[in-house]
Amino acid sequence: MSRQLHLGAFIMGVGHHAAAWRLPGADPANLTRPGYFTALAQTAERGKFDYLFFADRLALSDRYGNNLDASVRYLAGPRLDPVALLGLLAGATSRIGLAATASTTFNDPFNLARRFATLDHLSEGRIGWNVVTSTNDGEALNFGAEPILEHEARYRRAREFVGLALDLWDSWEDGALLHDAASGQFADPAQVHYLDHQGEHFSVRGPLNLPRSPQGRPVLIQAGSSSTGQDFAAELADVIFTAQPDLGQAQAFYQRVQQRLREQGRAEGALKIMPGVMPFVAARQAEAEARFAELEANVHPLAGLALLSDSMNHDLSQYPLDEPLPEVREVRGNQSRFKLVQALSQREGLTLRQLGQRFGGSRSHRVLAGTPSQVADDLQHWFESRACDGFNIMPPYLPEGLDSFVALVVPELQRRGLFRQQYQGSTLREHLGLARPPSRFSTSG
Amino acid sequence: MSRQLHLGAFIMGVGHHAAAWRLPGADPANLTRPGYFTALAQTAERGKFDYLFFADRLALSDRYGNNLDASVRYLAGPRLDPVALLGLLAGATSRIGLAATASTTFNDPFNLARRFATLDHLSEGRIGWNVVTSTNDGEALNFGAEPILEHEARYRRAREFVGLALDLWDSWEDGALLHDAASGQFADPAQVHYLDHQGEHFSVRGPLNLPRSPQGRPVLIQAGSSSTGQDFAAELADVIFTAQPDLGQAQAFYQRVQQRLREQGRAEGALKIMPGVMPFVAARQAEAEARFAELEANVHPLAGLALLSDSMNHDLSQYPLDEPLPEVREVRGNQSRFKLVQALSQREGLTLRQLGQRFGGSRSHRVLAGTPSQVADDLQHWFESRACDGFNIMPPYLPEGLDSFVALVVPELQRRGLFRQQYQGSTLREHLGLARPPSRFSTSG
Repeated sequence: MSRQLHLGAFIMGVGHHAAAWRLPGADPANLTRPGYFTALAQTAERGKFDYLFFADRLALSDRYGNNLDASVRYLAGPRLDPVALLGLLAGATSRIGLAATASTTFNDPFNLARRFATLDHLSEGRIGWNVVTSTNDGEALNFGAEPILEHEARYRRAREFVGLALDLWDSWEDGALLHDAASGQFADPAQVHYLDHQGEHFSVRGPLNLPRSPQGRPVLIQAGSSSTGQDFAAELADVIFTAQPDLGQAQAFYQRVQQRLREQGRAEGALKIMPGVMPFVAARQAEAEARFAELEANVHPLAGLALLSDSMNHDLSQYPLDEPLPEVREVRGNQSRFKLVQALSQREGLTLRQLGQRFGGSRSHRVLAGTPSQVADDLQHWFESRACDGFNIMPPYLPEGLDSFVALVVPELQRRGLFRQQYQGSTLREHLGLARPPSRFSTSG
Repeated sequence: MSRQLHLGAFIMGVGHHAAAWRLPGADPANLTRPGYFTALAQTAERGKFDYLFFADRLALSDRYGNNLDASVRYLAGPRLDPVALLGLLAGATSRIGLAATASTTFNDPFNLARRFATLDHLSEGRIGWNVVTSTNDGEALNFGAEPILEHEARYRRAREFVGLALDLWDSWEDGALLHDAASGQFADPAQVHYLDHQGEHFSVRGPLNLPRSPQGRPVLIQAGSSSTGQDFAAELADVIFTAQPDLGQAQAFYQRVQQRLREQGRAEGALKIMPGVMPFVAARQAEAEARFAELEANVHPLAGLALLSDSMNHDLSQYPLDEPLPEVREVRGNQSRFKLVQALSQREGLTLRQLGQRFGGSRSHRVLAGTPSQVADDLQHWFESRACDGFNIMPPYLPEGLDSFVALVVPELQRRGLFRQQYQGSTLREHLGLARPPSRFSTSG
């Protein structure tokens, strides 16, 4: 079989587009409705997606103007805790992978490792964790008075945190459970291990109070595209999420990551590269473009600027709305995202108001508006040009944006032999073609 | 309608009894199987229980001998994270309340408040949080090198933590969502509030990034019976869990709590008192007693002593197995439990070995072995003697122990007019007869 692409359904609220909640027929109350999320997961599973994914944020956006006014008024900002949500979805689905963001800055390794191991048990091996370090002062202020750690410090903590999570997941070897009722022996203490970890940020004795989960370890996802982020991914991650609006740059990124992967001594294909795309699909191209234009026209500029300020961790309310974004030397938030936005602003001569509207639309991910075959052409071209291993599909409005992708684009990709007709395996690792890692404590492996 | 009793199904692993996993027909692999837990929840819902409840512990027991040997070998100790589990069960049930323990010592207020609010949304108003302060050095060692805080310090932190959770749950007023697509106004900033909390233990700015949940606030449960614990419950809790083996003492406890409730200016009935009972039910009394005896005989003494050492936070491996428990002045763990166990040991002249076996059985909760009508008689007597408002039913072995209670005892209680035939409300607060609290930020209420 030829190389197969991977697809993730990246779900955000009632759609990635900031104006999605205003569409006729949209229901913003869906943001907290269980039935809405279970239906989305079941649609993605019908479309044979590798996984469903939820990002997370531990604060409302209030960077713009340093108050809540713009974001509360104009953004559909509330977000459910993804761990509880994945618990629900584990029961509503049977094959699709389920992944969510959790912060290494605002969690404890023991609790977090246990939660994801629990989800891996409850989903019978379908869980992924998107490791983020968090970039936002608003988040920091919900967890103490200190401002957010600097970039390198966040990654040092993240590296120690993830190492601990791996150790905790491995702390019960695969053969530890004896379940010998006759002799009364439940498990073998020789196969259950203290960690006795004493590091820069954490002291954790272990072991986890759970046997090893079906995947051995949940799938690890990394989502920063900075150099530090790439190193981190090449060393530890199974999947990398990235924003790549340009084919040439995406190819260069892909090659760089492969190079780093080799330097880490890891096998080719051990790390899947998944850029985001926001598809508008319709029977005719004009229809798809009209839907995109309709949404763009409905973005309140302050909605877009609130999002952008938050992502950069930089208050854009200090600049005039009808002039271009000035040169800003450094932001404390997502640095690769900021460079993208600055380049876009300069290339197209956008004012801040226009930039807000544009950012609310695509959030600097790539927009594809066209017929099913045009969208499939584009995805195929990127995939076959080695710009990626697959895509995070970011439906701009929900549930219709996911429905139409599953109904129209997935069958086209399947006809072309690029995407699975049926799930072959039962775990997320199997969908992604990744091996089940042995426990590092294992002497038999 | 006469006063109605409340019932909770307190689920522990494959049964509360330490030998449950060894019973013929028991399957210890159920400990991590989703279908096992969804079936239990559906059984309890068929039995019209007010709620299903899961305790939690953030470490394997290793207090006995200060190593894992006894607990890993003899106890069915692994536990899933209850938040993820409640997410699963929210989707598998539609009416029953769902409650779980979470520690105020090893969590952050923002994350925890958000998780329980999320669960309240996903269950459409059926969530309860059992607030514990954690008593165990083994847990502390999974969250840093420091030993556990002392009793009063833990409760000071807990009080600040719970106050913050209430504030976060209230931070979006009930009317905050506007959902006005035409004007583009999602919510009203005047009804979404910063907390700007700066306290002894926590700095949290807020607001929560979620609208107010269906119950306004999840139900608060408190489970320590110490004097500090009772004060805490009388001030803040909706439900109190307690171990009461003796009717007279239970009545005195009930009166004390009512007195404290009055002192707090809270209405009678605003705090439900729920002692635990472990029922063995069979068509004939001899059968029920035989099943209890069979389990008792199968408890490994080290299993019981491992549990007991852990609960007391005191290593019992230092005392001879075949002599009585010596006078110990102070333990650092559950103090009310320790006094109970010490009194039992002295009253019946038990050796440590016998105490281990006995503790593995009932864990100092009350055992009822008899016919459905005998068990119902006892529950009715306690209830009508104002010893409690209902019971936490602790099935000794699962799933049969819950099945038989639902099939045999619940109908008997219903025939007597003591327990609901059908759910009347849809939220846990409604099942418990508790009002939905207004937001403390509300000016209209």
